[in-house]
Amino acid sequence: MEKIEKPYVIGLDLGGTNSVFGIVDTRGEIKATTAIKTKAYPDVNDYVEAAANALEPIIESVGGISEIKGMGIGAPNGNYYTGTIESAANLLWKGSVPLAKLFEKRLGIPVAITNDANAAAMGEMAYGVARGMKNFIMITLGTGVGSGIIVNGQLVYGSDGFAGELGHVTIDDSPSARQCGCGRKGCLEAYCSATGITRTAQELLLKDARPSKLRELAPEDISSLEVFNAAKQGDELATEILSYTGTLLGKACANFALFCSPEAFVFFGGPTKAGDFIMEPLRKAYDENILYVYKGQAKLLLSGLNGSDAAVLGASALGWEV
Amino acid sequence: MEKIEKPYVIGLDLGGTNSVFGIVDTRGEIKATTAIKTKAYPDVNDYVEAAANALEPIIESVGGISEIKGMGIGAPNGNYYTGTIESAANLLWKGSVPLAKLFEKRLGIPVAITNDANAAAMGEMAYGVARGMKNFIMITLGTGVGSGIIVNGQLVYGSDGFAGELGHVTIDDSPSARQCGCGRKGCLEAYCSATGITRTAQELLLKDARPSKLRELAPEDISSLEVFNAAKQGDELATEILSYTGTLLGKACANFALFCSPEAFVFFGGPTKAGDFIMEPLRKAYDENILYVYKGQAKLLLSGLNGSDAAVLGASALGWEV
Repeated sequence: MEKIEKPYVIGLDLGGTNSVFGIVDTRGEIKATTAIKTKAYPDVNDYVEAAANALEPIIESVGGISEIKGMGIGAPNGNYYTGTIESAANLLWKGSVPLAKLFEKRLGIPVAITNDANAAAMGEMAYGVARGMKNFIMITLGTGVGSGIIVNGQLVYGSDGFAGELGHVTIDDSPSARQCGCGRKGCLEAYCSATGITRTAQELLLKDARPSKLRELAPEDISSLEVFNAAKQGDELATEILSYTGTLLGKACANFALFCSPEAFVFFGGPTKAGDFIMEPLRKAYDENILYVYKGQAKLLLSGLNGSDAAVLGASALGWEV
Repeated sequence: MEKIEKPYVIGLDLGGTNSVFGIVDTRGEIKATTAIKTKAYPDVNDYVEAAANALEPIIESVGGISEIKGMGIGAPNGNYYTGTIESAANLLWKGSVPLAKLFEKRLGIPVAITNDANAAAMGEMAYGVARGMKNFIMITLGTGVGSGIIVNGQLVYGSDGFAGELGHVTIDDSPSARQCGCGRKGCLEAYCSATGITRTAQELLLKDARPSKLRELAPEDISSLEVFNAAKQGDELATEILSYTGTLLGKACANFALFCSPEAFVFFGGPTKAGDFIMEPLRKAYDENILYVYKGQAKLLLSGLNGSDAAVLGASALGWEV
């Protein structure tokens, strides 16, 4: 008699350089992993073949493909509706790449794809701090600011699969607003991403004469981690940089709450390592700016997933929904 | 043999002064209406009794209560999850009023409740310009700015039933931002509601010396309708007031699109009577501010429902979902 239950899913964290695969169980435990170099395969068909070959031994290690319910892929510009990656700037594959279909054909299991921040939201809902929640907003802070929005227990994909780009909400409408990579000005991402924090540091060091350990670094070397390290050592300017970042995020989230009145915001990514240096001003700004009906409603949480595993776990969570 | 299909719903547009009831068919045709004075019943039990008595003849006129699938109520602070009205400022009933349950008991049919803007969104989806759409945002312009958000064909109620308050998104974060009725500053509502348009008119007439028909009115008498009428006659300042309103709305909607990548925005309410005086600058500002991935995606539409019927139709649409 065949077993009906399929206790595992495959998660693929597809980045410009590396592709990391994990086999994950229902509790979010990674049973086996493997990886290939994304950049080594200019032809996506070769990529899928190499991935399948790398996956073979780890699939066997959990009992074979019959034990796998599905596969989830988190990839830049991944579109859930079409199963494609659409013209991702950091990938060699141009145009629209039908990656979900290619993997389905090769592996014989259902495959779904979405972008990194949406995958992160799915991961928090399946295995992390948002377990059991039906309405929350995931905010990922990295090179950019990403978001994944869960409403009624479902990811919000919108009319085209590309919903949830809260990093591009305008938070500064003035002529002096910062230029964003998207071509517009004043986006949240230009202030609260890791690179936004670097810009804040560079600006503040220029206009404020106080001493700071950050002055020992070349301006381009001031990462959010360096700012955090300086703040921990009592550096006033570094503390202010993180406080400014948290305050802007808190105000922005108070506006986001008006959309879907979430149970929680979940924050993930490098800059969140600064912990209370960012989260305390964030909470304060949120409380000061939230509409009265929502007061005290939403929890402001840090991701519950291990940073290095989070992307694979997030992608894998999508594998349960296919 | 009993008929299984129930071809009608009851819609109740519950306002501070009047309560208007309609019996509506699947195509959005109002078959019969009645009304009572909300203010005449300080006790909500008396209100429900009076409503049931008023409804009786029109229910009979369509064949009796067995023909009615359910009832939908659009009311200030109506909460879908709890079926209650929560401390609505314009109603005599204080605290939490279990109106859905009271009507269910009295009429013997399922009853659902939500706020006015959410009901409007349901109405557009059931009978209006959003028929067949699964992702759109309804914006209602009146004394305030309300919103109802549809994601995956469902209203976004959020964790507490009060989601979708886009009128309170901060659009001006500067010290000179306008005070909003909610106690915060710089809300969209303070600029783009009917009262916001009056404030814009008052401000512009003070700081701009050009002649305008609007100067013939007392400042408190400058309604959005007066501004529209002046604009139609070629009044420059009036045209600018409406253009300013549309531009702010367009920019705000470009930010709203980042949440849910809607197929459309649907605008409803008095100020939308100004037509292209508001909609043209709105479309221009939206196109100029929308993130590139969403370019050309969303339609910007005026409500498809007859203004005076829209509230009853919207409420009734909820009756199909109970």
